[in-house]
Amino acid sequence: MSNSGTRKTREQIEGIFYPKSVAVVGSNRVKGTVPHDIFYNILKDNFQGVVYPVSPKEPSISGVKAYKYVIDIQEEVDMAVLVFPSSVCNLAMEQCGQKGVKSMIIISAGFKEVGEVGLKREQEVKAIADKYGISFIGPNCLGVINTDPYCHFNASFARRMPAEGSIAFLSQSGALCTAVLDYAYAKNIGFSKFVSFGNKADVSEIDLLYYLKDDPKTKVILLYLEEVSNGRALMEAARTIIRETGKPILALKSGRTNEGALAAASHTGSLAGSDEVCNAAFKQAGIIRCNTIEEMFNYAIAFSYQPIPASNKIAIITNAGGPGVLATDKAIKEGLTLARFSEETTRTFKKSLPVTANIKNPVDVIGDARADRYNAALSASLSDPDVDGALVILTPQSMTEIKTIAEEICNISRGFTKPVYASFMGEMDVMEGIHVLEKNHIPHYSIPEDMCQSFATTYKFGSSLAIKDEAFVPFSDIDKDAASAILKEAASKGRTYLPEEEAVKVLEAYKLPVLPHGLANSKEEAAALGDKIGYPVVMKVMSEDIVHKFDVGGVQLNINNAEEAKKAYAGILANCKEKMPKAQIKGILVQKMVKNGEEVILGLKRDAAFGHVIMFGLGGIFVEVFKDVSFKVIPCDKTQIKDLLHEIKGFPLLDGIRGRTKKDVESIIACIQRLSQLAVDCPEIKELDINPLIVQNRNEGCYVADTKIML
Amino acid sequence: MSNSGTRKTREQIEGIFYPKSVAVVGSNRVKGTVPHDIFYNILKDNFQGVVYPVSPKEPSISGVKAYKYVIDIQEEVDMAVLVFPSSVCNLAMEQCGQKGVKSMIIISAGFKEVGEVGLKREQEVKAIADKYGISFIGPNCLGVINTDPYCHFNASFARRMPAEGSIAFLSQSGALCTAVLDYAYAKNIGFSKFVSFGNKADVSEIDLLYYLKDDPKTKVILLYLEEVSNGRALMEAARTIIRETGKPILALKSGRTNEGALAAASHTGSLAGSDEVCNAAFKQAGIIRCNTIEEMFNYAIAFSYQPIPASNKIAIITNAGGPGVLATDKAIKEGLTLARFSEETTRTFKKSLPVTANIKNPVDVIGDARADRYNAALSASLSDPDVDGALVILTPQSMTEIKTIAEEICNISRGFTKPVYASFMGEMDVMEGIHVLEKNHIPHYSIPEDMCQSFATTYKFGSSLAIKDEAFVPFSDIDKDAASAILKEAASKGRTYLPEEEAVKVLEAYKLPVLPHGLANSKEEAAALGDKIGYPVVMKVMSEDIVHKFDVGGVQLNINNAEEAKKAYAGILANCKEKMPKAQIKGILVQKMVKNGEEVILGLKRDAAFGHVIMFGLGGIFVEVFKDVSFKVIPCDKTQIKDLLHEIKGFPLLDGIRGRTKKDVESIIACIQRLSQLAVDCPEIKELDINPLIVQNRNEGCYVADTKIML
Repeated sequence: MSNSGTRKTREQIEGIFYPKSVAVVGSNRVKGTVPHDIFYNILKDNFQGVVYPVSPKEPSISGVKAYKYVIDIQEEVDMAVLVFPSSVCNLAMEQCGQKGVKSMIIISAGFKEVGEVGLKREQEVKAIADKYGISFIGPNCLGVINTDPYCHFNASFARRMPAEGSIAFLSQSGALCTAVLDYAYAKNIGFSKFVSFGNKADVSEIDLLYYLKDDPKTKVILLYLEEVSNGRALMEAARTIIRETGKPILALKSGRTNEGALAAASHTGSLAGSDEVCNAAFKQAGIIRCNTIEEMFNYAIAFSYQPIPASNKIAIITNAGGPGVLATDKAIKEGLTLARFSEETTRTFKKSLPVTANIKNPVDVIGDARADRYNAALSASLSDPDVDGALVILTPQSMTEIKTIAEEICNISRGFTKPVYASFMGEMDVMEGIHVLEKNHIPHYSIPEDMCQSFATTYKFGSSLAIKDEAFVPFSDIDKDAASAILKEAASKGRTYLPEEEAVKVLEAYKLPVLPHGLANSKEEAAALGDKIGYPVVMKVMSEDIVHKFDVGGVQLNINNAEEAKKAYAGILANCKEKMPKAQIKGILVQKMVKNGEEVILGLKRDAAFGHVIMFGLGGIFVEVFKDVSFKVIPCDKTQIKDLLHEIKGFPLLDGIRGRTKKDVESIIACIQRLSQLAVDCPEIKELDINPLIVQNRNEGCYVADTKIML
Repeated sequence: MSNSGTRKTREQIEGIFYPKSVAVVGSNRVKGTVPHDIFYNILKDNFQGVVYPVSPKEPSISGVKAYKYVIDIQEEVDMAVLVFPSSVCNLAMEQCGQKGVKSMIIISAGFKEVGEVGLKREQEVKAIADKYGISFIGPNCLGVINTDPYCHFNASFARRMPAEGSIAFLSQSGALCTAVLDYAYAKNIGFSKFVSFGNKADVSEIDLLYYLKDDPKTKVILLYLEEVSNGRALMEAARTIIRETGKPILALKSGRTNEGALAAASHTGSLAGSDEVCNAAFKQAGIIRCNTIEEMFNYAIAFSYQPIPASNKIAIITNAGGPGVLATDKAIKEGLTLARFSEETTRTFKKSLPVTANIKNPVDVIGDARADRYNAALSASLSDPDVDGALVILTPQSMTEIKTIAEEICNISRGFTKPVYASFMGEMDVMEGIHVLEKNHIPHYSIPEDMCQSFATTYKFGSSLAIKDEAFVPFSDIDKDAASAILKEAASKGRTYLPEEEAVKVLEAYKLPVLPHGLANSKEEAAALGDKIGYPVVMKVMSEDIVHKFDVGGVQLNINNAEEAKKAYAGILANCKEKMPKAQIKGILVQKMVKNGEEVILGLKRDAAFGHVIMFGLGGIFVEVFKDVSFKVIPCDKTQIKDLLHEIKGFPLLDGIRGRTKKDVESIIACIQRLSQLAVDCPEIKELDINPLIVQNRNEGCYVADTKIML
């Protein structure tokens, strides 16, 4: 979604990547400055359209006739790249609008990122763009690169234009781009589109993602973000791209939000630090979150160069035992399996390799192996029906034919549809071989462990493609109006906290299984309620002034008859009067008591970036000590809710581990579905805690034992 | 410890690194083969002594007069490098012995690693060496390199001799060495000593470690291991080195032992997979375990080039916001803190940096920064008393003075005793700067996160140096003979399992707090025991045939009086007769029942590499579901036992989290100390489980509620 609130059309973004005529507005003749370099880069990097320098002072730039103003250009101008100081960008923009420019890149800094004055400038520029129907990237960015030879457009002040490739890179940080381009250049990594989107005052990363979905030049999308401003739109875009095209999206997200700002009173709040939510949301949307730039490119070349493996069964081929073992350790840890070679493969190995070779997986062709042994081992492995990918390790021994082996790997790989990766360990000695691999699109990793991790990442992504989202089916048996009325009533009074008795009514309206209960205002009423509900019961003081009921003796458990109920009523009142004499007491809640259930917590929280998020965990110490909780952005389908449940380490406790009785997991899922709908219907809920939800044995349901809602 | 069982002397190892006259026995004239290259490498790499080729066939090699046999050499020969085929190594060795050679390197392969025949050859060679008092490295190795210019000895078939440096590298894998040398060469990393120790038939890694302890050329020791053959000796060597010299030891250990082989009946067994034990043992010994070669060298250059930081307070200086944030995220995660700049520092920043710069930590000198800004920011940061280290990040913008900035970093760093690291992101564009940094020993990392992790590793190592080991003080109130007698009796009968009633006696001999109990053989005896012990009691069937007592109804809890005791006696017997009619029943154990304690598990296990290991965890699901356990090799001192306790995530449950009562942690420590002594005294114990140990409130002690011992 662009910052206009509507998504940019394909044509609007296409205009940015594929201009026919470009004006660089504000260019100059000073080499090594941005206004000069941008023009010069477009020119020298073989732009297939026409580029005009616009400079109030210079008659020509880099030998090309310059224009004083963009409106002085006689021919049509599709696109303008703005490099003027921010203070005059509005004027230049106005002129571009008048000239009929439809696409722009605003390189200039000095906007939102410098505070109030800059923000005003940015709004002004945006307003002018909207007036003229201009779409623009930036401001405050490094620019845009399109390597497609049909256009070949380097509108950036990067030191070099990258080669053509199938990786698209979108970055919120301009400075990082230069490092990325340099890194990629050294590794022969090419790009399809390369965008530094800066302050994204108009075109956003979401617009760009949708464009890349349909970009035939792009196979993998890389995204560097410092903040998620519209998490829902990002998730939706990612899901659409992955579902419709299978293109993987790799994201590096820095700038973990200050946890202090998110600290909240309830458990949910204190745990749902937004970085955890971000993790969960990315996973839910299918976005692969990376920890470093290096990791991102490790995965990117794997996806870009080789097919996704059909299974997790690999062959490892090495000329050094140690690295073979290191790779095996890592492969297993990442969920890969060593393939079991067929008898035929084993026969081939025996024929082609020396007796000292290890012909089991990992295959050790021994330190003195020349190209023939690698050749035999790799061909035979890839021909084996149990092998769905091969990882080749090489260490530079004195007789190792490094370049030839690299060439053979590339040749053999072409004869198979199975992925082949390589790790030539060392650096200088193996350089020549590495270049061969890189140029022939065999993903290369100096560290065998990185190779294994990258293979595993493509495998996991491939598997996840098979999982289909289910539609979220709203419930029809809920009473939305009743819930809304309670929430609106509270909001109208400026209250931010709904006490249990009101929160319970909201849950009841959504048919959540609230424990049978009633409010007693006398000993007799308490006893009558107990009789009606059936013993044992729990009794709790109801007072807006008493938040920690247990601590003041405001709760009594295990009340087994009318007599005890009366006694408890008096006892609770006395305790509260003693400990909190000024508390306004509404009455004593009498509630059915459930024994032998497993306690879990459900929490709902509105995250700044992703909106309503559900948290799940086992109760008490599992949350407090083990932080064993999981998150999903809602609404989520049943598959995702099952994920939510299975993601906690303690799930086996609900699933009948070691002879325990299986708990009613289905009933938890139903609760989460209903909560999910409540959150969708009532966006004003800031937080909702059900703590605990008491889950009984299978088919026996669960009960909401305590709840609160924050607005 | 060498494989002779005695540790090599300093002089013996010195003879290997600093020979004056060397014979290469079995050399030839075929370039690119090991027998030729070894001789040629010694010669060309400027050996300061004299080297003689010995070849049965050739009159000269590389222009140097060759000898038919080593005994033909007139002059004294200190050292021989053996490159003959393994089948004739014994003959060559015999001659070397006769010649008076005292040090050898056996490069030749074809020994233990190829099976039975090879093992015999290895033993033969070893016997000859012992006869003549020869110390040797290998067989089956790449060789030995000593870069000390005083000797400058490259007795290896590596492609190149590394530069001089203060890093020693010991490797069990020869093939890995070539990759490591290549990697290090590209990064300008030098070595003090470089040893491929191969099969270590004589000189072991332990001998080498002790030598390196006193080697003034070595500041950091790197160790690549595929198996730990003598874990205790390794730990002892590491501890001695670290304690006496503060030299860090970095280890990469591959080849995680097959977990299947270690699977055992009890919980302890199934969890003490030896890799976890290895982790624990390394940590306990102060060895820093690395996951990859890259990580090992990341740390190695940090330790080798810069001082250990005085605290965890760092300054981050960057010309790009994004990478600054990525580095901050990682630094915080690794336990570092961003220093708070003084007013003076802030004033300096304000004076020297543009208004757009971020003068808070991380300091952003902005993308267009030239050397002057880096200079000002780094000098001011290092002068600040709150800063104990500086991490400098650079991305290659078009105006970035990459080489000058690198030079300035090196210059400024020389004026301070605080560590300075750098990360120049990218690759080709920043290469020149990186070389300057590397050559001036500023640790450089392409990935800022690696820089933070390495800094944190040196900081943590520095902190750990401050922790002093306490001596293990044996208990005097134990009855070793009683325990030994029970164990010997069981062993003599070929039993591998000690039932509870016998295991309990062993524990009692070591004054472990066993619950009061007695064995009843009638209803009446059960009641009498109950009366004597005091109710409530637990009753359990005692039978060697019934391992899972609970499952057959062989256990009853909460027995509150004599009547119930009689009933329980009858009930248990009936259950067992029904479920396991053939079981031999010795009686019913009547045991005091403790309520309201926290259950923990103590386990003892004999690890193949490290000997007796203690395991600690909370009971039940915490072990089974959360795998929340920790390990230490015993004997361990009180500080280490406290570590053992604190290392589990669930420790707060014993420590009074959220208003819980604090448990008697001191009593657990005492139990572990006693168990530790039991393990030291009785090496025949293979496994011992105390499950559960019931820990009461502080100062109220703990009780062993169930135990078993495996021999």
